[in-house]
Amino acid sequence: MSKSRKLGLAIAQMGPVHLADDRRSVVARLVSMLHEAKGRGARLVVFPELALTTFFPRYWMSEDEVIARFFERAMPNADVAPLFNAARELGVGFYLGYAEITPDGRRFNTAVLVDANANIVGKYRKVHLPGHSDHKPDALFQHLEKKFFEVGDLGFPVFDGFGTKLGMCICNDRRWPETWRMLSLQSAELGILGYNTPSRNIYWNEPPHLRMHTHLISLQAAAYQNAMWIGAAAKCGAEDGFHMIGGSVIVAPSGEIVARSSGEADEVIFANADLDLGDVFRQHVFNFAKHRQPEHYGLIIERTGSGAPLPHRDS
Amino acid sequence: MSKSRKLGLAIAQMGPVHLADDRRSVVARLVSMLHEAKGRGARLVVFPELALTTFFPRYWMSEDEVIARFFERAMPNADVAPLFNAARELGVGFYLGYAEITPDGRRFNTAVLVDANANIVGKYRKVHLPGHSDHKPDALFQHLEKKFFEVGDLGFPVFDGFGTKLGMCICNDRRWPETWRMLSLQSAELGILGYNTPSRNIYWNEPPHLRMHTHLISLQAAAYQNAMWIGAAAKCGAEDGFHMIGGSVIVAPSGEIVARSSGEADEVIFANADLDLGDVFRQHVFNFAKHRQPEHYGLIIERTGSGAPLPHRDS
Repeated sequence: MSKSRKLGLAIAQMGPVHLADDRRSVVARLVSMLHEAKGRGARLVVFPELALTTFFPRYWMSEDEVIARFFERAMPNADVAPLFNAARELGVGFYLGYAEITPDGRRFNTAVLVDANANIVGKYRKVHLPGHSDHKPDALFQHLEKKFFEVGDLGFPVFDGFGTKLGMCICNDRRWPETWRMLSLQSAELGILGYNTPSRNIYWNEPPHLRMHTHLISLQAAAYQNAMWIGAAAKCGAEDGFHMIGGSVIVAPSGEIVARSSGEADEVIFANADLDLGDVFRQHVFNFAKHRQPEHYGLIIERTGSGAPLPHRDS
Repeated sequence: MSKSRKLGLAIAQMGPVHLADDRRSVVARLVSMLHEAKGRGARLVVFPELALTTFFPRYWMSEDEVIARFFERAMPNADVAPLFNAARELGVGFYLGYAEITPDGRRFNTAVLVDANANIVGKYRKVHLPGHSDHKPDALFQHLEKKFFEVGDLGFPVFDGFGTKLGMCICNDRRWPETWRMLSLQSAELGILGYNTPSRNIYWNEPPHLRMHTHLISLQAAAYQNAMWIGAAAKCGAEDGFHMIGGSVIVAPSGEIVARSSGEADEVIFANADLDLGDVFRQHVFNFAKHRQPEHYGLIIERTGSGAPLPHRDS
């Protein structure tokens, strides 16, 4: 057994960002939480998905308008410079979600990993885009991720850093076990994500408590089944009247929640994550090399949607 | 929306089966629970893994001895005839786990699906065998599934029956998200399983409450993420001093536990499962055809064990 490897991990949950809030005020909130996290012992701070703006996919707008108002043409840029400067000063790294437009006009729901020298050392573009691309005038609100973003083209990269191997995902990715398997198969010991999860479901009258319940069981099962630490940062509360769940958490490889936000405003939660805690799971119950049977998993990549049962084999 | 499709689903949890208990007495317990389940409205009853005997992989024995004492050469056979007869009389189907030896001597940890006419209409052989094949004299007990069984060779078959499509798995399979994906990708609306889960971990000093916790979160996440009903039947309590967890449950596609055993003895739990409840999940958040991205899941079948991070793609 190596000597103990601890990572001070903070989740910086954000309360609402309204349409009228400018990036300067948002970034000031992030900087404030970065300071608080550093004071608690953090070496890595996780901010939410689309942290710099309101969750704009809820609005029916033209591509031109969303690009002008909500997308970043470069990262870092002048608006976020105070955050990068603070990170460098404090010697703290972070995960930041934002809307990315590339020089050739491609749009992604993106997160970057920034090291303690304020260098971008990793990028992830959201693979599992929820929602729709058409206008749904009768819905309570829109969920236009499929209109405003294309599917991420970077796969599920895993990075060396912070004394560990870590991967990123974003929001809806957390509900898909394939996400976590891709990370653990590349030896990630930590997965981090931000999310914006409306407390109402526009498709059916889902009891609101279920949104929190399924968020938590997805993260807990993922942490356990992949022997990983997971840190998840919400943007939550009511953005211009549209409410989103909180429930930011840090989950241990045991599947236990070891830190959880208590409100729906800006809030830092922290855990001194023992990265060795996953070892017993990786070595025994989830020793993939010993126990996985990929020859029986073919449909997972052969099919996209569900289909008919396979022909039964003779017994 | 089709008219409501309800399935009366019972889980017949078993208390311990000791080495000294003969199959006749065990089968009488199963028959008794089959009657109780029928009285509650069940059309399908789930019995545990290796339901006819004690959980023998805990004992270091020769193959010849385990074959003679614990394996079934045919199914049905004279010992289980009372159970099949009762099923036919009552018009109730069941899942039954047992140790199977084929005419050519191959050994599997097997479950059969039996219809309301007492015909075997499906078979599953456990794919994810936990434990080890060597003798561990210093362990509290053995977990010799890898010695006594070979990996199942039937894949994860899905069957038409009981007004639905359903699949089976066994014990440790439930901890592997690949299991559930294989079933949901074949349009299963229900997954059923039996299990024997020691409350002590022979590999490390795992807090006993974690065994129950990880059992439950695995089933809850699986039900939700695959929009399936899940019914899980424990064999539990102390078999000749070796304690196993209970916690038999029925989980709805919402990830919510709708029925749970309250003890560690023979106990029937029941839910009138609305098979349409999964529709809203299958149509929206888990509309696989719309949202899955198999081109990003390659490692899930390309790798068995974990390995190095893939090269990063240019962004």
